[in-house]
Amino acid sequence: MTSATKRITDFIAGLRYEDLPESAIELAKHCLLDWLGVTIAGSREPLVSLLLDQAEEEGGNRVCSLVGQSHKCAPGWAALINGAASHALDFDDVVSSMGGHPSVPVFPALLASAEIRPTTGQQFISAFIAGFEAECRVGTLAAPGHYARGFHATGTVGTFGAAAACAHLHQFDSGKWQAAFGLAAAQAAGLKCMFGTMTKPFHAGKAAANGLLAARLAGRGFSANGEALEAEQGFIATQADGLNWEGVQAMGEDLGIAKVMFKYHAACYLTHATIEAVSQLQTEYQVADEDVAEIIVKVPPSHLRVCNIQEPKTGLEAKFSLRFTTALAFCGRRTDDYAFTDLAASDPDLISISNKVRVQPVDFLPNNYSSNVEIVLVSGQKLHSSADVSRATPHHEMPAQWKKLSAKFVGLVEPVLGADATRALIDSVASLETLDDMNSIISLAQAK
Amino acid sequence: MTSATKRITDFIAGLRYEDLPESAIELAKHCLLDWLGVTIAGSREPLVSLLLDQAEEEGGNRVCSLVGQSHKCAPGWAALINGAASHALDFDDVVSSMGGHPSVPVFPALLASAEIRPTTGQQFISAFIAGFEAECRVGTLAAPGHYARGFHATGTVGTFGAAAACAHLHQFDSGKWQAAFGLAAAQAAGLKCMFGTMTKPFHAGKAAANGLLAARLAGRGFSANGEALEAEQGFIATQADGLNWEGVQAMGEDLGIAKVMFKYHAACYLTHATIEAVSQLQTEYQVADEDVAEIIVKVPPSHLRVCNIQEPKTGLEAKFSLRFTTALAFCGRRTDDYAFTDLAASDPDLISISNKVRVQPVDFLPNNYSSNVEIVLVSGQKLHSSADVSRATPHHEMPAQWKKLSAKFVGLVEPVLGADATRALIDSVASLETLDDMNSIISLAQAK
Repeated sequence: MTSATKRITDFIAGLRYEDLPESAIELAKHCLLDWLGVTIAGSREPLVSLLLDQAEEEGGNRVCSLVGQSHKCAPGWAALINGAASHALDFDDVVSSMGGHPSVPVFPALLASAEIRPTTGQQFISAFIAGFEAECRVGTLAAPGHYARGFHATGTVGTFGAAAACAHLHQFDSGKWQAAFGLAAAQAAGLKCMFGTMTKPFHAGKAAANGLLAARLAGRGFSANGEALEAEQGFIATQADGLNWEGVQAMGEDLGIAKVMFKYHAACYLTHATIEAVSQLQTEYQVADEDVAEIIVKVPPSHLRVCNIQEPKTGLEAKFSLRFTTALAFCGRRTDDYAFTDLAASDPDLISISNKVRVQPVDFLPNNYSSNVEIVLVSGQKLHSSADVSRATPHHEMPAQWKKLSAKFVGLVEPVLGADATRALIDSVASLETLDDMNSIISLAQAK
Repeated sequence: MTSATKRITDFIAGLRYEDLPESAIELAKHCLLDWLGVTIAGSREPLVSLLLDQAEEEGGNRVCSLVGQSHKCAPGWAALINGAASHALDFDDVVSSMGGHPSVPVFPALLASAEIRPTTGQQFISAFIAGFEAECRVGTLAAPGHYARGFHATGTVGTFGAAAACAHLHQFDSGKWQAAFGLAAAQAAGLKCMFGTMTKPFHAGKAAANGLLAARLAGRGFSANGEALEAEQGFIATQADGLNWEGVQAMGEDLGIAKVMFKYHAACYLTHATIEAVSQLQTEYQVADEDVAEIIVKVPPSHLRVCNIQEPKTGLEAKFSLRFTTALAFCGRRTDDYAFTDLAASDPDLISISNKVRVQPVDFLPNNYSSNVEIVLVSGQKLHSSADVSRATPHHEMPAQWKKLSAKFVGLVEPVLGADATRALIDSVASLETLDDMNSIISLAQAK
């Protein structure tokens, strides 16, 4: 078998800023803005303070910034904590070919690397796109078996993304790229059964830290199997249904980042189509609670193993509950990060509607990001709606997307850093490719 | 399904020093002596210096000792480096119910914990036995599919062992024990395709560091799925062929540590029966190189995916080569850690015999640790021998085992620490249960 690892790493190593399509560069900036927003807000979550306590016990050379915090810590800990913080709200971007969240493992590793040695905005952009590409290629190679079995791709596949971004920044030769992928494969972990607990965002942080470590050790000459993806008893053999060659064949056609999707609800992306469909119905009909007999939510069968917690008890569990998110949308509540608290999970109005929601797996939907909703009224009348959130943004809509992301960013960041720093960060990301040194933007993202 | 995770963690949490059989305490001391020996010698391997450089870049609170080194580093890094050093020679102990090496993930995590807060010898012994037990239970639950698929149990299952040892030391309540297992499951990684590279011992180090982190975070209140072993999309569902209930049913009959086996050759344990069988034949017949037509090595089929590297180029690869280890034994060479160098891998005499070795998978052997060897002479005569290294040591043979392990220890440690420290360490381990504080023994294991 031709080496998939070498073909993929050679392709990614060859990505040059000068050759990148303008739209990819634009999307990298969208990803960074969105990532900074969810990380700065996420930095206030309880799980982050537990990790900070642990980092304090470990100590380290304080050379890398914690986004949204006022202090620095050791590179590996910065990658871990920034990664966990950025996925804490589950409000970060998504790409289907990876089967997960592309930015949260990659940016934390890359930021840490950029603080260890000076990095320009253009180097940073191309390294990020390289990491993103690695996730899409490895994710596709392992699809569909990997995610279906129960692996959390953000943790597993994300490790390759983080390693690839750092390898790209350090301009590794071919052997070191392959060793970095080997060391990534050797550490890749994460289980879907952790959804709804602090360990889900922890996966993202570990992917970032482990990917950074993989690249650092490979750079020093550490040896690993150089064909870790396709090897007998390698990553694909142990954790997928076989090597899906599409992951390699499509290289060079479209960059993975072209398909990135952003979240405007702070819950599992697989609940978004349902939220949209329910909101549409309520905008049109304004159904009252007492008039509802049942709400039938029709989704792909695989959703049942991802986001179908029946009676969530915590805010984190609520993010993975189609019943709860349906109730939020039905009641016209916010669906941003303020919606998913432990208190909201015990709100009697939401629970009352939740209890009328029945999640029904169906096979006829066009893709994994679609949903049909039927509200059955006490009167017997049935209201129908559907939504599909699978579409990536076409080029002409990018300015509109930037505006939408900026508004989301302001909502997340202003309460933490204040209006001036929030504005300065948006401007700085907007002109990312002109930066001589990433430190200027990194320091803006810290709390004063 | 009854919670396997809770049943296992409850049982292990309940292990008390006072109730442990004398033989288990004795074996824990054998494990520690052997572990210290292979770690002190392993601390001089190239992969350790690469990890030390990385640790230096990260920095940290220098509170935990690096065995065989003269300095200290942060707890997580100490666990990682001591773990990798101890598995670097592949000369450490084995237990079949785990499917791997029990001591190398557990002791490093436990030593680091014992330096964070004072720990007596008795607490240390019982925590080690608890970690060992976790590995045997989780290993059995996941058997035989886990190892057969290509997971390296020392890395994966070892993470639970390290977490359990630390949880036992900190006397966690039931919820924290389950969270510690959840966080272990979320980080468990390691692939058999890495055998023969530096990444194999790295797995042991990561298991130690990740297990330590799992326990520390669980202790702080970090949340995880509390049924990580048996959960849908949990550890067993993603990485085994189903839950093998023997792992739970046998609890309380015999402790896992009762079945520990020690190595006297510094190669994969699955090569040991073959080495013994070849040595027997050579002791009896002293066959000359030129008289050999062929050496047929008959082993269980699963060996082909573990230790059958045909033409090893490095010392690390040679440890996983039945052909090379057969040649060593045939030529009457040493089979300790001095035998497996890059230079030895290119020795023409060894290569010449290696090339006459044919590894043949057969189904009739009594267990996975047996081998039949047939030397076919140029004259047509055939010489037969067989060996079985599956037997654990019965109680009456323990003094003899201690002697044998002490001799191995002297060979490994004297060149690094000198005769006095070597003797002092042996005496100290021999009276481990009387120690008020593990720091006395830890400081002896450091280079001056």
